Amino acid sequence: MSAFVPILRTDWLDAPTGLEVIPNGSVTTPDGFVAAGVACGLKASGDLDLGILSATRPVVSWLLDTTNALPSAPVRLNRTRGRDGFQAVVVNAGIANASTGSGGDADARRMAELAAAELGLDVEQVAVSSTGVIGERLDMHRIPDAIPVACAALAPDGGRRFNQAICTTDRLLKGGAFRLALAGDEVALGIAAKGAGMIRPMMATMLAYVTTDAALSPEDLRAVTERAGAESFNRISVDGQMSPSDTLLVFASGTGASLAGEDLATFGDALRAVCRWAAIQMVKDGEGAEHAVHLTVRTARDDAEAEAVARAIAESPLVKTAIFGRDPNWGRISQAVGMALAHSPGVPAELGVWLDDIPLENPAARAVMQQAEYDIAVALGRGIGEYDLWVSDLTHAYVTLNAEYHT
Amino acid sequence: MSAFVPILRTDWLDAPTGLEVIPNGSVTTPDGFVAAGVACGLKASGDLDLGILSATRPVVSWLLDTTNALPSAPVRLNRTRGRDGFQAVVVNAGIANASTGSGGDADARRMAELAAAELGLDVEQVAVSSTGVIGERLDMHRIPDAIPVACAALAPDGGRRFNQAICTTDRLLKGGAFRLALAGDEVALGIAAKGAGMIRPMMATMLAYVTTDAALSPEDLRAVTERAGAESFNRISVDGQMSPSDTLLVFASGTGASLAGEDLATFGDALRAVCRWAAIQMVKDGEGAEHAVHLTVRTARDDAEAEAVARAIAESPLVKTAIFGRDPNWGRISQAVGMALAHSPGVPAELGVWLDDIPLENPAARAVMQQAEYDIAVALGRGIGEYDLWVSDLTHAYVTLNAEYHT
Repeated sequence: MSAFVPILRTDWLDAPTGLEVIPNGSVTTPDGFVAAGVACGLKASGDLDLGILSATRPVVSWLLDTTNALPSAPVRLNRTRGRDGFQAVVVNAGIANASTGSGGDADARRMAELAAAELGLDVEQVAVSSTGVIGERLDMHRIPDAIPVACAALAPDGGRRFNQAICTTDRLLKGGAFRLALAGDEVALGIAAKGAGMIRPMMATMLAYVTTDAALSPEDLRAVTERAGAESFNRISVDGQMSPSDTLLVFASGTGASLAGEDLATFGDALRAVCRWAAIQMVKDGEGAEHAVHLTVRTARDDAEAEAVARAIAESPLVKTAIFGRDPNWGRISQAVGMALAHSPGVPAELGVWLDDIPLENPAARAVMQQAEYDIAVALGRGIGEYDLWVSDLTHAYVTLNAEYHT
Repeated sequence: MSAFVPILRTDWLDAPTGLEVIPNGSVTTPDGFVAAGVACGLKASGDLDLGILSATRPVVSWLLDTTNALPSAPVRLNRTRGRDGFQAVVVNAGIANASTGSGGDADARRMAELAAAELGLDVEQVAVSSTGVIGERLDMHRIPDAIPVACAALAPDGGRRFNQAICTTDRLLKGGAFRLALAGDEVALGIAAKGAGMIRPMMATMLAYVTTDAALSPEDLRAVTERAGAESFNRISVDGQMSPSDTLLVFASGTGASLAGEDLATFGDALRAVCRWAAIQMVKDGEGAEHAVHLTVRTARDDAEAEAVARAIAESPLVKTAIFGRDPNWGRISQAVGMALAHSPGVPAELGVWLDDIPLENPAARAVMQQAEYDIAVALGRGIGEYDLWVSDLTHAYVTLNAEYHT
């Protein structure tokens, strides 16, 4: 698996000045973290499928998860502990442990117990994630054997193996590390993520784990994490589907610079850029995707209306096949806008649509759609509401991946 | 074009006893109607593309149309007249006259004026429909020449040519006529419809025109039409998209039996069955469709919740590709249910899912999915809400049709 999916449109990240990639970095590059990935046989391929990421000293953390009403057993377990206080996470790929009833709940709890015992942590301090097939139980012979092996292998250079272990059908690895220069100091951020959109052929889920050596209060970590999540992973759509397992977990070890004032704001922007970096890779690696489009709806009545319109466009199979077919199809966008606003009075008949700032009706707009990455902007002309998200196209490869998979 | 799309699951129509197909019937089979279809060159193929259906004596009528917030010019024109009082309709295929601004409004009005002058009607009595490409103006040289030709050709046997003229990319004609036996009397119903789902590759729209010789009051016609529309054309989904032009228009000439009491109720059921007959043909003729599924969500908290869940399942590309791939994929249905209920507390973890009344987990359920038509039922187990609709699958042919079309 190659290092990561290259993003050409780096302006999409809106990264602060002073944020730089650390070559060959990973989720364990920031000081204070160890990780490991082992193969326990859940993946038929024999690839790594169980990973552990752990802090080496007490950290502050914040966890966000799916809004799906039928969350997986690990998501339900993590919620019983609140959203903070986690010191480690144990992740398996291959089986999602979702829709598995009370037996699945017991399996998730046992994963946390086994890891906590090995790591010398309280069971409440160990988060659990599972990604893969929905509706099947975990193999609770293989996993209990593998957790002590993974714990014994925990190392400061284990971030890349951890990242490999959490992948399912990702074609490319989504992780790395960044250095952020602050006023007179610097901090590091690492990330390990997986996901090819909201959901894969029965291999559901986006997961992302972020580490930093920055020192910040639990309240500040919560604030920057919630904004980063809302403006990255919550703004991508491959097929409009929502996994029962989606999780973002951020750990801050505090061994580096203490953040306040301007530095805290800069760090927040950096965290958002790092999350966008992973999120846009998910879109680009989305099922069968050939194009990644940054869609902005502006001059809506309010932000909520802009979001509803943006999601209607982003989830329209007619728009998504037009992106695949590289056809600047004004009528399909207009149709999606009209559908989203079906019960709203006073919709203006004239929409503005731009591709990379070129009006769609301009013949030059057609060339924009030949690119792998470009912007679509839609103006409703009736207010100051705005919303943006990233979306992939609907291709034959999507249908093949999802129709040929058999339970 | 063959006569109509055969429906194997005739129980889906829920037709009253005494409703029978009239062989070779059409929208002009009921007494009191004439129709014509001519070719005016809007279709590059030279096929029929302008149709007129007219009453030969005063009729009662009721019109339903799209909820899209950017309706086409003809829909906007018809709304200025209210929903009743129409004596004729003029329809063109090839250009939708949608998103065409005030010029498009003038074109639609001119179509009504020309037809009204030829037919000896007030302009307010002539409904207009257009279906085809969105965002292009009509050719107002060809249409004004064609309307008098079509009016001169109006005949009691013109129903089939009218039906051909309103089609765009339909593979099969959707129309016919039925005889309904009542207590000691009988009435006839005819229908001409077009549509391959909510929308076709730039050839948007479902249109349906129903005629009957039954005599019923405007209030009764409104009541039976609104129920028939809500429980047929509003319950189909090919790709979850909504056309700006959708129209259902029912005319009752009153030359036949007068309807009241039980006969009125029976007629309402017959009208619904006839509308379902056309609506389900649209699903079966949907873009690239290989399967038509009748999806029922039951034991929801209320009907609105059942509808939200049913639409989430019906519009899930993961569920639709699983139907195409004939895979009884419980996890994808569960995922869609969980997504639809994201902000609703107390969702039960255990869903019931049946294929033709066989529990999905039963190995025999797999064989059900080999059929071209079958039922999926999903039980939420938390109330008495219920909703049902018909849905097609997501296939390679859908992607090909929609990606290869170029504006």
